[in-house]
Amino acid sequence: MDLSVSPRTRERLDRLRQFVERELVPLEPLFLTADWATLEPVLAEKRRAAKALELWAPNLPVEVGGLGLTLVELGLFSEVAGRTPTGHYVLGCQAPDAGNAELLLQHGTPEQKARWLVPLARGDIRGCFAMTEPDSPGSNPTTLAASAVRDGDGYVLNGHKWFTSSADGAAFAIFMGVTAPQAPRHQRASLFIVPTDTPGFQLVRNIPVMGHAGGGYYSHAEVRFTDCRVPASHLLGPEGHGFALAQERLGPGRIHHCMRWLGIAQRALDELIRRALARPIAEGQRLADQQLVQAWIAESAAEIQAARALVLQTAAHAEREGFKAARDNVSMIKFLTAQAMERVLDRAIQVHGALGVTDDTILAFYFRHERAARIYDGPDEVHKLAVARSLLKQYEARGAKELP
Amino acid sequence: MDLSVSPRTRERLDRLRQFVERELVPLEPLFLTADWATLEPVLAEKRRAAKALELWAPNLPVEVGGLGLTLVELGLFSEVAGRTPTGHYVLGCQAPDAGNAELLLQHGTPEQKARWLVPLARGDIRGCFAMTEPDSPGSNPTTLAASAVRDGDGYVLNGHKWFTSSADGAAFAIFMGVTAPQAPRHQRASLFIVPTDTPGFQLVRNIPVMGHAGGGYYSHAEVRFTDCRVPASHLLGPEGHGFALAQERLGPGRIHHCMRWLGIAQRALDELIRRALARPIAEGQRLADQQLVQAWIAESAAEIQAARALVLQTAAHAEREGFKAARDNVSMIKFLTAQAMERVLDRAIQVHGALGVTDDTILAFYFRHERAARIYDGPDEVHKLAVARSLLKQYEARGAKELP
Amino acid sequence: MDLSVSPRTRERLDRLRQFVERELVPLEPLFLTADWATLEPVLAEKRRAAKALELWAPNLPVEVGGLGLTLVELGLFSEVAGRTPTGHYVLGCQAPDAGNAELLLQHGTPEQKARWLVPLARGDIRGCFAMTEPDSPGSNPTTLAASAVRDGDGYVLNGHKWFTSSADGAAFAIFMGVTAPQAPRHQRASLFIVPTDTPGFQLVRNIPVMGHAGGGYYSHAEVRFTDCRVPASHLLGPEGHGFALAQERLGPGRIHHCMRWLGIAQRALDELIRRALARPIAEGQRLADQQLVQAWIAESAAEIQAARALVLQTAAHAEREGFKAARDNVSMIKFLTAQAMERVLDRAIQVHGALGVTDDTILAFYFRHERAARIYDGPDEVHKLAVARSLLKQYEARGAKELP
Amino acid sequence: MDLSVSPRTRERLDRLRQFVERELVPLEPLFLTADWATLEPVLAEKRRAAKALELWAPNLPVEVGGLGLTLVELGLFSEVAGRTPTGHYVLGCQAPDAGNAELLLQHGTPEQKARWLVPLARGDIRGCFAMTEPDSPGSNPTTLAASAVRDGDGYVLNGHKWFTSSADGAAFAIFMGVTAPQAPRHQRASLFIVPTDTPGFQLVRNIPVMGHAGGGYYSHAEVRFTDCRVPASHLLGPEGHGFALAQERLGPGRIHHCMRWLGIAQRALDELIRRALARPIAEGQRLADQQLVQAWIAESAAEIQAARALVLQTAAHAEREGFKAARDNVSMIKFLTAQAMERVLDRAIQVHGALGVTDDTILAFYFRHERAARIYDGPDEVHKLAVARSLLKQYEARGAKELP
Repeated sequence: MDLSVSPRTRERLDRLRQFVERELVPLEPLFLTADWATLEPVLAEKRRAAKALELWAPNLPVEVGGLGLTLVELGLFSEVAGRTPTGHYVLGCQAPDAGNAELLLQHGTPEQKARWLVPLARGDIRGCFAMTEPDSPGSNPTTLAASAVRDGDGYVLNGHKWFTSSADGAAFAIFMGVTAPQAPRHQRASLFIVPTDTPGFQLVRNIPVMGHAGGGYYSHAEVRFTDCRVPASHLLGPEGHGFALAQERLGPGRIHHCMRWLGIAQRALDELIRRALARPIAEGQRLADQQLVQAWIAESAAEIQAARALVLQTAAHAEREGFKAARDNVSMIKFLTAQAMERVLDRAIQVHGALGVTDDTILAFYFRHERAARIYDGPDEVHKLAVARSLLKQYEARGAKELP
Repeated sequence: MDLSVSPRTRERLDRLRQFVERELVPLEPLFLTADWATLEPVLAEKRRAAKALELWAPNLPVEVGGLGLTLVELGLFSEVAGRTPTGHYVLGCQAPDAGNAELLLQHGTPEQKARWLVPLARGDIRGCFAMTEPDSPGSNPTTLAASAVRDGDGYVLNGHKWFTSSADGAAFAIFMGVTAPQAPRHQRASLFIVPTDTPGFQLVRNIPVMGHAGGGYYSHAEVRFTDCRVPASHLLGPEGHGFALAQERLGPGRIHHCMRWLGIAQRALDELIRRALARPIAEGQRLADQQLVQAWIAESAAEIQAARALVLQTAAHAEREGFKAARDNVSMIKFLTAQAMERVLDRAIQVHGALGVTDDTILAFYFRHERAARIYDGPDEVHKLAVARSLLKQYEARGAKELP
Repeated sequence: MDLSVSPRTRERLDRLRQFVERELVPLEPLFLTADWATLEPVLAEKRRAAKALELWAPNLPVEVGGLGLTLVELGLFSEVAGRTPTGHYVLGCQAPDAGNAELLLQHGTPEQKARWLVPLARGDIRGCFAMTEPDSPGSNPTTLAASAVRDGDGYVLNGHKWFTSSADGAAFAIFMGVTAPQAPRHQRASLFIVPTDTPGFQLVRNIPVMGHAGGGYYSHAEVRFTDCRVPASHLLGPEGHGFALAQERLGPGRIHHCMRWLGIAQRALDELIRRALARPIAEGQRLADQQLVQAWIAESAAEIQAARALVLQTAAHAEREGFKAARDNVSMIKFLTAQAMERVLDRAIQVHGALGVTDDTILAFYFRHERAARIYDGPDEVHKLAVARSLLKQYEARGAKELP
Repeated sequence: MDLSVSPRTRERLDRLRQFVERELVPLEPLFLTADWATLEPVLAEKRRAAKALELWAPNLPVEVGGLGLTLVELGLFSEVAGRTPTGHYVLGCQAPDAGNAELLLQHGTPEQKARWLVPLARGDIRGCFAMTEPDSPGSNPTTLAASAVRDGDGYVLNGHKWFTSSADGAAFAIFMGVTAPQAPRHQRASLFIVPTDTPGFQLVRNIPVMGHAGGGYYSHAEVRFTDCRVPASHLLGPEGHGFALAQERLGPGRIHHCMRWLGIAQRALDELIRRALARPIAEGQRLADQQLVQAWIAESAAEIQAARALVLQTAAHAEREGFKAARDNVSMIKFLTAQAMERVLDRAIQVHGALGVTDDTILAFYFRHERAARIYDGPDEVHKLAVARSLLKQYEARGAKELP
């Protein structure tokens, strides 16, 4: 179990912590009120600063301009960046671009890398990932309706997608559609790179989520692909590998997400404690002196610590033996961490009282925005059932005679 | 224990149910996107319809144009109205006006009634209740900083208030300020009616709550009273009775709120079940066939039923013996019902998956908006401690020898 | 909703409360340590006292020597009796005899009543109910293996049963066995009265439960019926009605159980509060002054009250419209009340600290003994799924167009 | 963070796993029914086997006959031993002897070591630790009533103790009593070694715990020390260091306990899964196919893994920087792990249905016996408050300006 962090990363983490606290946290009021057009140039400035501080692209290898971190180190970066809503974007490791970049890196042709990966890794363009469909559970992508039909030297794509995050302003979409309807379930679909200026690509709307209309990077779109034609060279990975690649894409992303959630949880706990220390409730009594608040502090700290210990252990495991081997643990950290974050956020809001539901702190944003954490990338229930079935299989295989 | 409902009320409840479902639920998309200027005339139209259907002002006695219901009946009205966010406003029994009307009814002078209660009961004007202050816990109004100083034939009011709900557009505020700083804690403050065009009254801002900027009736304001002068005739109730009246105002309001929350919870359960029945997840399998979803349905139904049974019992109790006698139960239903609502909402969102966090259903609104239910009118924790102390006192009084 | 209690019952309840507190609670140390042979004569004495106080057989009609209570009244009796482990036995309304008496009353022939019901109602004999089998889930009695084969003027019974409560010392068993293996699932089995001195009846062992070896009334047996021959006149109810009667038997029993559990919960809360008031933890500080303890008190009180409100409402509902109509609610109170009891017991133990796990109080007994409450008479999960399926069916039947 | 395990320990752990499964688990039925006189010789035989397998005394250094493990390795041993109730005793690392041996090792004089530690480490004698008193919260040992008064060349000890685990049959007690009543709170008490044949030492009774009368090693006694005279050479550690040493004694013990609890939890999960795989509930359906059971499996696995990750990390932390530095984490794992164990046990019982509450499996024993886990060595609430106060202090010290 290698949880070690290089001295260089340790030093960069310190720098990141300061950068987040001094440069990004103060942006929160703007973030909560400004539209994307206003916000984007401010964030662009911060991205330049992040590059200057050698904090850019922690998720990417050195050869494409990234920091070349281990998974454990990347997790620690993600936690710190997660302390404020703009963190990941400013570091250039935001979803869905991080996952897309990994896909291009692992499976892109040299041309695809040159055209899409290079500017993506620099932060010059953004992309999106068009997999989920409104009429089919996101957790079961084998029931996709979208199609990709070979036609001459290209493919014709049709499909209705939604929750295509950050489609608004994206330079390209990675589209998942069925290329072989008769193939075995997991080999039906393929991935395609679709520039968003392709005729037939239509951003129907940004879906309002938890009261937020959505715009620019911070958006989730409903998208239609109507007879979109792309050349065969836009196929990403082999035909029929759509599901496999989409799954592969999720692995590191989950470590990412979990550590980001822990960053949110830790931030919430920090705010909880600060408020408790600052808020008088009666003569000589602060919220911090209340047992109920104290119990919440301890439970929050314990839940964060336990989740963090397991996430980092899972990261080390996945690094050493691959995400397939670590699959059950990846599912476990997904639901465990999302729940811990939610509980800590809830307590932090409660300690803030009425202030906690206002947008005068960042807590209410996280509370409403991260309700989705138990849903996206597979609802908690799907992960639980997957873990259980895997364990049941292992016990069955082992048989009655063997030791547990 | 009288939980009976008159045939006339039964019939009106049926009418209300239809009205809510056919006339108000369809307004939800508009409600979620329109500003108050757009929404207000639409709701005004619905208010006229509610009056025509004899559903107006269920909280008020017949003599001021209300329906003259018992507390149990009013609770049942509130539950049905709670099924959609515009319900209470359209029926004219919305907070804070319902509480203000009750105050004026019980404690207003004939002049105050003529000037404020009559148009309020008709829905011609709105008011607000300016008690809570940013630097003092709402649950402990004995630490008020706002002051009301007698000066000639009037009072001069100064204070900084927030979470003054619906101040935006209100015709008057009921202001709570200290008139006797040296008096015993609970006799320091008094209430005053302050027309919002009084010089010195300033609506500083609508506080953004859970991503909602706030506007018109649907708003929570930060308000300043700077040397606001009102004639002595604007004193509401006797001097020094501010806390007592504010407390009294909350009693029926809590039954109201609890039943409204149960309406929300029942609506959420209805949506949960409909979605579960409608959503296929694999061949021949709907969400409704999943055990985990079924368990949530049963738990939700049971929690709603148990809470409803206790709320109605408490209403009957309070009707018979007064709110003072029912105080512990009122506190219990407050936290019990808020928690039940929250759990049901959470499950309903989870069953909707990604759709659940969008504003394409009403669930996400309730989820974010009603997070405050565990905070306003006294955080759950304050109610729990109050109940416990009351019980401890009763057991102590009873002594060791007596039967429990 | 008729929750009223007659003045006579009210008066008897007061008497019962005193009797339980003064006569039965003091038996607890003996109950926890003595075997049945020692305990039985002591309880017999108390039974005579209960009869003298007109508290005997609250579950039975007047014509067989009972008190002739309504279901609501019976529930209130059961709650008070539940405050101590010997309560129901001393009142003569203990499981499984209460259910057996009801069966005999409703479905017994005059001969069966004369021979079994009369002494049972007097408390002269005890019986048991042999339904559950070790290799088949108790919640699904349609998979019974036990058989009853017609042979001349009698039946030959064979079967392996367990959790046959109170078989040790019982005068008769009501045996459930398959008479028509080819019949539709719910019409296969029949009930038979089997005197325990019938050749072939074997009490294999009392099953040790939660560390208690079991003996006499307080026991759960493994039982074998091997070629047990009974005359045809021992058939209870019509052939093929075994399941229907077993189900019918459970209805009033569940109200009973739920109210008994609430009695346990209320007793636990009483003990919790007494301990909290009595226990110093530091200078000038008692456990009762600790917020965490106070929160538990309030949560416990609220959960008990809400469950009680729903159980009594369900009793009134069942009384008025029958148990079939109230079935969903009966399932709901089963799991809701069991959970509430468990939580209150857990908190009461925690407040007692080390003392709480000893047998110096009654709490540890209830804690271990009533873990089964979430299992017997159908595990909570089975009830939850039943409620959900019933609700889903109702929503489906109602269709899309109708109001909820 | 060094979580590594030496190859030798890895190999021993494998041996231990087999030993536990093949030699100790089969003893469970005997363990559940036999008294200590019957059980002791059987366990003595197993202890000899453990020594032969080089599994003896994993908690002790090589020089006194132990295995000389790191804290992480010891934790892993404790987990495996925890899978069955006799594990720790058979390995010779059972409480309270493990803690007593550590005390003697660190603070005993050469004579004390020769007389007590050597036979204790060999398993030839047992001891007990007499600290807790009935009238004073165990979590606050500064309110001790027991006294130790210097008298000539010895001390005279008086005190009333309870929950003196394993006093029955112990060769000596370590007694904690006040030597300096006027000293600062934490310097009042001292420890003394008291041979149990000292006049004035009286084992009043074994306290019945959760239905178990207690006997021999498996007992918790009420003990009186009445004018017990011991020579001054029986003072353990310096005078006035009683609290400090008692605290020190708990540190490694908590790692121990937590890993033992995880062993119990893992065992329960194993049993849960086996039962779920083996139990048919309807045609073609096993419990293992039920979603609700699957969700419990996944949640249990995740909770165990997260707790284990944090416990081992805490062990490594404490090894490297001492228990003082790791104190907050030690408190966190205490309540986190106890809760996880309890939840897993509860689910395992529920999956076993009626069987789960019988003593035909080990689950019911663990369920009732380990309810105390949230109480002993400091109730969860005390640990939570301690963690919170420590964190609050850290945040306060850090001040407003610094980064979190």
